[in-house]
Order: sequence, then C-alpha cells, then structure tokens
Amino acid sequence: MTERGRFITFEGIEGAGKSSQIAPLADWLRARGRGVVTTREPGGSPIAERIRALLLDRANTGMGGTTELLLVFAARAEHLAQVIEPALAAGTWVLCDRFTDATYAYQGGGRGIAQARIAALEDLVQGDLRPDLTLLFDLPPELGLARARRRGEPDRFEAERLGFFAAARAVYRGRAAACPQRYRVLDATRPLGEVTAAVTRIIGEFVESREDYLSANDD
Amino acid sequence: MTERGRFITFEGIEGAGKSSQIAPLADWLRARGRGVVTTREPGGSPIAERIRALLLDRANTGMGGTTELLLVFAARAEHLAQVIEPALAAGTWVLCDRFTDATYAYQGGGRGIAQARIAALEDLVQGDLRPDLTLLFDLPPELGLARARRRGEPDRFEAERLGFFAAARAVYRGRAAACPQRYRVLDATRPLGEVTAAVTRIIGEFVESREDYLSANDD
Repeated sequence: MTERGRFITFEGIEGAGKSSQIAPLADWLRARGRGVVTTREPGGSPIAERIRALLLDRANTGMGGTTELLLVFAARAEHLAQVIEPALAAGTWVLCDRFTDATYAYQGGGRGIAQARIAALEDLVQGDLRPDLTLLFDLPPELGLARARRRGEPDRFEAERLGFFAAARAVYRGRAAACPQRYRVLDATRPLGEVTAAVTRIIGEFVESREDYLSANDD
Repeated sequence: MTERGRFITFEGIEGAGKSSQIAPLADWLRARGRGVVTTREPGGSPIAERIRALLLDRANTGMGGTTELLLVFAARAEHLAQVIEPALAAGTWVLCDRFTDATYAYQGGGRGIAQARIAALEDLVQGDLRPDLTLLFDLPPELGLARARRRGEPDRFEAERLGFFAAARAVYRGRAAACPQRYRVLDATRPLGEVTAAVTRIIGEFVESREDYLSANDD
C-alpha cells in the first residue's frame, strides 16, 4: 500500500513572500525522492480557476460576503476532488499556496463572517481533511501591501484597506497560536534567502519526525 | 409600515413551460395594483448571472456535485441580497423562475447529493426565508425534454440523460406531496392557455386568502 502524501499549506497576507518559497521547497523535496505537486487557492483546477477569476475581478466589488464564502468553498471542493485528494492518495506531497486558513483570515477576519459558518462549510467540503503542516509567513500589513503594490494593478482583495489585512493577520496568528503542532510561524520581514533557509529547516524536521514510518514504505 | 411582498416560485423540469407563465401572471398582478419583479435562478443579479454561466457551460462537464451545489447557493446568496430581499421588504411581489426546490430536485435527485447537505446550506444562506407559494409544473420527462430540445443547443443540464430528469421530477413531486399548503401542482401536459388559466385561478385564490390583512396596508 502506498503511504499517503503530506499536505503542506503556505499562508500569509499579500506581500508575505510565501509564493516565492514553494518552488525551491518542491525542488528540495524532489531531490530527496518525494513526488511533489505545487498548487494554489483559490484555483488549482480548470473550473476552480474560473471561480478564482470571478473572486478576484474588481468588476465584482459589490459581492456579498456569503457569496464570496460559498465561491471560495466551491473552488476548494473542485480542487480537492481533482487535484489534492488524488495526489495525496497516490503518495504525492502537495504544497498549496493558501487553503482554508485563508478563508478564516480573509472572509472571517477581513469580512467579519462568523467562524462557525466557515467551520460548517469546512466540514461539509473537507470532511476530516486538514493540512499536515501550515507555514505562516507573518509580517505587518503595511509592509506586505507596499510589496504587493509594486507588482502592479491590485485585484479585488489587494485593493482592500489596511484594516482588512490587519484583521486577517490577527486571525492567522490566533489560529497558529491555538495549534502549534500544525503551524510554524516565520518572520517574513527578513530577507528572502533567510526565510528560504528557515523553510528548509522546518521541512527537514517535519520529514525526519516521520522517517520511521516513511522508510517502511519507501522500499 | 409596508407589508412585506409575497415570494412565489415556479418549478419544474426542462420543457415544463413554467417560464412562459411568469410574464402573464406578472401582468395580471400589476393590473390588480401589486408591484411585481420577475427574476430567475440560477442568476438574477450581475454576479449571480456570471455564476450561472459557469454552471450551464458544457465546457464544465466534469464539475463535481459539491462544487455545483456550492455554486448554486453562491448565486442564490447574491440574488437574495441584491434582488429578492430588498423587493420583498419594499412590499413588491417576487415571481422567481426556479429556487431551492430545484436544488433538491437537480443536485439532490439528479446528482444524488444527500438532502441533509442541501438543507444545511439552505439554512446557512436563507435563514428562515422560504417561498410563500410554489407552483410545480409537472410532466413526464420524455415530453419535457422533447419540448426543450426543440429550443436549440442544450446547456450542461439539458444535456443530461432521461434518468436524471426522472429523479428530479420524483423529488419535486415528493416535496409537493409533503407540504400541500405551500405547493400547487399543475398538469403541464395540457395546452398553454389552459395552464395559464389554472395559474391565474390559483393566484386569485392565494391573493383572496390574504385580502383581509392586505387591505389594512393598501391604504
């Protein structure tokens, strides 16, 4: 029986630099013989990417919070069924740029949707599935937004005000503090190379802590 | 205080002729001095119509059942917030071509999604809101599909097999039988003019049964 892959998520507000860390980590894992897929949310499959386009389009600025929440989970259901679940079942590791923590942070913290409504949808769409490890790239929103806005025209989320991201960051940090087994918080104000080194160290420890039963299946 | 408008929904499988009945009924109600809006699902507001386009597009044939279910409710949340709720609150009557009964029929009956999952989303998105009256245009799916296919290229739902519509019809009839206070079942195999006469008679009775407290607010 193939051992199930690991599901690792990358979280943080705009400009935290999380997306830049995924490709180097995928290379590092592949060099150790792991099958790896990298993907992102919202999106990650053709239908989910079409839903992402609706979510990010600034023409949809008046969208209601519940609509946004349901679209996020619609894209997630598709992404899980088409990409994440088949990969994990085949023993492939999945590195995902944002997942349900981002829903708690953005739709919960940013838009003020009750955490219980998000949790109900999380259970409905994911069943028991949760990430095995979540890396939170933490930095003050002033700095993150300044970085993100250098990238060009902001999307519907990037165009939000500072308070939106401050609330999202607070939710992220609160969730990480509540469950230190699953989350690792990185200081994303530090230079890129230092953050990459920290990611590699964390993943190295994560892999080692599982070597006992991994080695039984790698033969 | 303005009396709340009435929410009347039109349900039935493809080719049942329900859509043709809405405009004449709207005229009939306006002639009696009611404010009326006519609308449809999925869709009914700009963002909801964009979600409708995703749902109906035959390019999205592989879409998962949970994704479809969440997209339907995302569109509904937007439609409720932008169109239905403001109209009802202003005393306007809302005539809607399909609503949540169609979700039970199509995603529940047709796709096999558990009724409890649909009910959970119904409560989350609608709270206590349910239609005041639902007209079910009932006919055998063979006949409905033959009519619908005369209209041209089928969309993603119209392209489903007969068994899908037979299951949807069974759910519609079951729901109507379980709650005769809210549903009226019309024989949609009869000629258009006879069906229109039946609709007008039903709505006439519905209006009369409420005249006592309507008249207190019409002054």
